Amino acid sequence: GVLGSGDFARSLAIRLVCSGFKVVVGSRNPKRKAGLFPSAAEVTFQAEAVKKTDVIFVAVFREHYSTLCDLADVLAGKILVDVSNNTEINHHKESNAEYLASLFPACTVVKGFNVVSAWTLQSGARDGNKQVLICSNNQEAKRTVAEIAQVMGFTPVDMGCMSSACEIENIPLRLLPAWKIPIFLALGLFLCFFTYNLVRQVIHPYIREQKNKFYKIPVEVVNTTLPCVAYVMLSLVYLPGVLAACSQLYYGTKYRRFPDWLDQWLQHRKQIGLLSFFCAALHAVYSLCLPMRRSHRYQLIETAVKQAVEKKMNIWVEEEVWRMEIYISVGIIALGLLSLLAITSLPSIANSLNWREFSFIQ
Amino acid sequence: GVLGSGDFARSLAIRLVCSGFKVVVGSRNPKRKAGLFPSAAEVTFQAEAVKKTDVIFVAVFREHYSTLCDLADVLAGKILVDVSNNTEINHHKESNAEYLASLFPACTVVKGFNVVSAWTLQSGARDGNKQVLICSNNQEAKRTVAEIAQVMGFTPVDMGCMSSACEIENIPLRLLPAWKIPIFLALGLFLCFFTYNLVRQVIHPYIREQKNKFYKIPVEVVNTTLPCVAYVMLSLVYLPGVLAACSQLYYGTKYRRFPDWLDQWLQHRKQIGLLSFFCAALHAVYSLCLPMRRSHRYQLIETAVKQAVEKKMNIWVEEEVWRMEIYISVGIIALGLLSLLAITSLPSIANSLNWREFSFIQ
Amino acid sequence: GVLGSGDFARSLAIRLVCSGFKVVVGSRNPKRKAGLFPSAAEVTFQAEAVKKTDVIFVAVFREHYSTLCDLADVLAGKILVDVSNNTEINHHKESNAEYLASLFPACTVVKGFNVVSAWTLQSGARDGNKQVLICSNNQEAKRTVAEIAQVMGFTPVDMGCMSSACEIENIPLRLLPAWKIPIFLALGLFLCFFTYNLVRQVIHPYIREQKNKFYKIPVEVVNTTLPCVAYVMLSLVYLPGVLAACSQLYYGTKYRRFPDWLDQWLQHRKQIGLLSFFCAALHAVYSLCLPMRRSHRYQLIETAVKQAVEKKMNIWVEEEVWRMEIYISVGIIALGLLSLLAITSLPSIANSLNWREFSFIQ
Repeated sequence: GVLGSGDFARSLAIRLVCSGFKVVVGSRNPKRKAGLFPSAAEVTFQAEAVKKTDVIFVAVFREHYSTLCDLADVLAGKILVDVSNNTEINHHKESNAEYLASLFPACTVVKGFNVVSAWTLQSGARDGNKQVLICSNNQEAKRTVAEIAQVMGFTPVDMGCMSSACEIENIPLRLLPAWKIPIFLALGLFLCFFTYNLVRQVIHPYIREQKNKFYKIPVEVVNTTLPCVAYVMLSLVYLPGVLAACSQLYYGTKYRRFPDWLDQWLQHRKQIGLLSFFCAALHAVYSLCLPMRRSHRYQLIETAVKQAVEKKMNIWVEEEVWRMEIYISVGIIALGLLSLLAITSLPSIANSLNWREFSFIQ
Repeated sequence: GVLGSGDFARSLAIRLVCSGFKVVVGSRNPKRKAGLFPSAAEVTFQAEAVKKTDVIFVAVFREHYSTLCDLADVLAGKILVDVSNNTEINHHKESNAEYLASLFPACTVVKGFNVVSAWTLQSGARDGNKQVLICSNNQEAKRTVAEIAQVMGFTPVDMGCMSSACEIENIPLRLLPAWKIPIFLALGLFLCFFTYNLVRQVIHPYIREQKNKFYKIPVEVVNTTLPCVAYVMLSLVYLPGVLAACSQLYYGTKYRRFPDWLDQWLQHRKQIGLLSFFCAALHAVYSLCLPMRRSHRYQLIETAVKQAVEKKMNIWVEEEVWRMEIYISVGIIALGLLSLLAITSLPSIANSLNWREFSFIQ
Repeated sequence: GVLGSGDFARSLAIRLVCSGFKVVVGSRNPKRKAGLFPSAAEVTFQAEAVKKTDVIFVAVFREHYSTLCDLADVLAGKILVDVSNNTEINHHKESNAEYLASLFPACTVVKGFNVVSAWTLQSGARDGNKQVLICSNNQEAKRTVAEIAQVMGFTPVDMGCMSSACEIENIPLRLLPAWKIPIFLALGLFLCFFTYNLVRQVIHPYIREQKNKFYKIPVEVVNTTLPCVAYVMLSLVYLPGVLAACSQLYYGTKYRRFPDWLDQWLQHRKQIGLLSFFCAALHAVYSLCLPMRRSHRYQLIETAVKQAVEKKMNIWVEEEVWRMEIYISVGIIALGLLSLLAITSLPSIANSLNWREFSFIQ
C-alpha cells in the first residue's frame, strides 16, 4: 500500500508494480489522481487502501501525518514505512519516523527508502550499488521491508533500531561533511603561505629597490605557495597516527577511546591526503607552464642580448644545472608516488585491497 | 538441469556444481560429451535429464529450439531458463525467449544469464558486481531463478515481464550506444573549427604573403581547435537543462514528457561533458608541449640575434606579460575544476554522493 | 554464539547485536570480560554459551583450538564458524578450518569472515562492497552462515567445499601477488635500457671527446629509457594472446590447457599494461620538464650569442622543425589512447562494459 499521491508516491508505485507487487494507492481524491499512477496499481480511498494491505508506505510530508489519524483504527497492527525527508538537518527534535510511531502506537514503524530519489525509483537500480538504509525496533518488520527492497533491486542495509532514524534522515541532507574541515584547513594554509610569499617575492623588492614584479602574482607566487600547502597537509596525514600510537602506548590499552579532536583528525586523513595530492598536482602543472610564459621568453632574450653585446661566451654554471636536474627528477618521482596513493583511495580500488596491501602502499 | 553441451552449458554446469546444486546435463550423445563436464554432474539423455529436474537451462542456439519439440511432453510444467544470445541487434522479430515460450506453451519461460559470459561463470563472480538480468511473466518462476543466481554469487536484477526479453538480449550486443552521438558531435565540431583555423593560420598567410607556415598544422592548429570544441561541448551539457526547465515552466507541469530530441540530449549530457573534458585536457598537454618544439627554439634565437645585432636592449611589453600570466592561471584553475567534475562521474564515486552533493559539485 | 574474548570476538558480537541477533559469548572468565562486550550480549561460561546456541563463531587462535576439546560433547551437531587467520602463507600443512573439523568430527565446520577486519565489523559494511568468502562441505550450514552474513550487511560469496579453506585463509596475507612479476620485469628492463643509454649518452662522449655530460643522468637518460620500457611492456601485453591463438590453432581445440608459463603470462597482462602506461605517462612528464631546466636555458643563450657574434641570421631547419612537430603530435595522441585503456581497467568502469565493448576498446 502507498499513502500519498506526490512525485515520490508515484515513482514508488511504478517501481513496486514493475517488481511484481500488487499495489494499492490510497488517496483522498482517487478519481482525480488515478491518471498519475500505472494502470496495474489500484487507486482508491485511503481507508480502503489500508484495509487491503499489510505493508503501507507513508509518502506524505511530516506536516500532514496528523491528517492520517482518522485511519488509526484500520492501520492498527500494520507495518508503516516512513519514507519522508526533511529540508534541514536536525530540523525537528525527534525524527519523522519516531514522530509517526508516537502518533500510531498500534503500528510497527520502519524507516527506509528516504535515501533513494524518485528518479532512481523510476529508472530502476540497474547500477546495483544503490543502498536502502533501514531501521526499526521490530526485527520481523525490518526483515519484511528489507526483502521488498531486495526484490525492487536495491541493497537493504540494516542500521539497527529506531534511534538511528534521525541519522538516516540526515543523510540526504549532508553536504560533503568529511570535506569541510580539510578544505577550510587547506584554504587557511594557502592564505598564510600566499601572504608570506607575496611579501617576500613582490612587495619587498618593490619597496626596497622599486622593482615592479607584480606580474609574478598569478603564476609564480601561487606556484611557490602550493608545495608548501601540500607538504604541511601531507605531514598532517601521518601525524595523528603517530599521536594515536603514543596515546595507546601511554595508557597501555587499545580499548580507551581517543580524545574527540584526535578521533576527528584520524577520520579526516583521507580527505587531507587527497587535498595534499591536489595541491601537488597543481604545483606540477604550474611549474610545467613556466617556460610558456611571455616573461620567461623576454628574460631569456634579454640575457642573450646582454651576453652577445658584451661578447661573453661561457655562462654555464655546473652547480645550478645539477640543482635543477635533481629538483625536477625528485619532483616527478614524488608526484608519481602520490598519484599511486590517490588512485588507491578510489572506492572501487580500495575495496579490492586487503589490509596488508593497503598498509604496504601507504 | 542443463540442455546442451557447448561452451556455455559446460561453464554453467561447473558453476552450478561449485555452488552446491545437483546438476543433470541432457545431451543427445551423453557418452561422448560426459568428459567435458565435471564429474559431480550427471550426463544423460535429454528426456532423462528433463524428467529428473524442475529448472532447466536451455543452452542451445535459437536455431535448434525446434529440435527440443520431442521433449514437449516431459517439459510440461517445468521452468525453462533461456540463456541464449543473438549475433545481431533485433535480428529476429520476437526475442529468443518469447519464441521459446511460443514453442512450449505448457512451460514457464524465464529469460536470464545471457549477459554473463562463459568465462565469468567459470572464474566465479568474485568481484561481486556482475548482474544477472531476469524477466518472466511468472513471478514465482522469476523468484526461483533469482535465488539460484544469488547462490551462484551473482546479483539478480528484476527486469519485469517477458516483453523486456528483447531488451535483455540486446545488451551483450550493444557497442557503447550512449557514446555514438557525442563522439560524432565532437568529431564534427573538430572538423569545422580545424578547417577555420587552418585557413586562418596557414592558408591565408600563404596566399597573401607567401609565408610557409605549414609546420603549424600538427600542433598549433590542433591546439587552437581543441579549446573551441571543449567550450561548445561544455555549453551543450548545460543548455538542455535550461531548455527542459523552460519547457516545464511553459506547460506548467512536471509530468509532461519532453520531446524526443530533448530527452535524448538530456541523457547524453554525461558523455558530452566527458568528451569536453578530454578535449580540454588534450589542449593543456598540447600547450605544455609548445616550448619543447624546435620551431619555438628557432624563433627565440632569431629574435635574440636580431635584437643583439640592432643593440636593442628593452623588449619587455608589460601588457603581453600580464595577458599570458592571467591566461595560464585561469586555464589551470578551469582544468582543475573540470577534473573534479570528471572524477565525480566515475561510477564508484558518483554512487557515494547524494543528490545534494552531486548538484553542489555541478 | 561467540567463543573468545579478543578484539575480533568483541567486534563480531557488537555487529551481531546491531543486526538484531541474540548473542551469547562464551569466555573462560565471563565476569572479567563482560565489560568488553555490548550489554545486549550475554557473556557466560563457554559450555553454557554453546548449549544455548546453534551457530558458534570460534574466534580463538589455532593454537588454542585444542583447549576447546572439553566442549566436544556440547558442541556435537552444532555449526562451528572458523574465523581465524594465519600469520604466514601456508604456515600449516592443513588449513585452520580443516584442523578444527578434524578435532570436532561431530560438528559441521564452515570457514568464513576471516577476510573481514575487526574494524570493518565495528564500523559496519556501509560501502556495500565487502565480501565474506564462505566454504563448507555441508550445503545447509553454508547457507545458514551466508544468511547471517547477509543480514549483517555483507555479501556472502560461496567458495565451494572445505578444500578451498586454505585459499580463503591465504587471502588476507597476500601482498599484491599479481604485481610481483610485472614489477620485477619492469625494473629489469629499466636497468638494461638505462645502462645502454648511460653508456651511449654520457660515458662514450666522456671517454672519446672528454665531454662532461654527467648532468644528463637524472633527467635526460631516464627520459630516453622510459619509452623503451613502455614499448617493450606494451608488446608483452599483446604477444601472449597471439601465442595462445597459435597454440589453439596448432592443437585444433579450445579445451586444452595452455602451458603454465603462458597461463601465468596471460593472467598478468593487465598489470603489465598498467605499468607500461605508467612508464609512458612518466616519459610525458619528463619530456614536458625539459624546457624548464637550467641546462636548456644555457644552451639556448649560448647558441643565440654565438649566432649574434657571427651575425648569422638564418638558422631555421625545416626538416628538424617538422620532425619535432610530428613527434609531439603522435606522442600526445598515443598517450591519450593509452589513458583510455588505463581508465577502462578501473574496476568500476570495467564492470559496466560488456565483452564486445571491452574488446572494441582494446
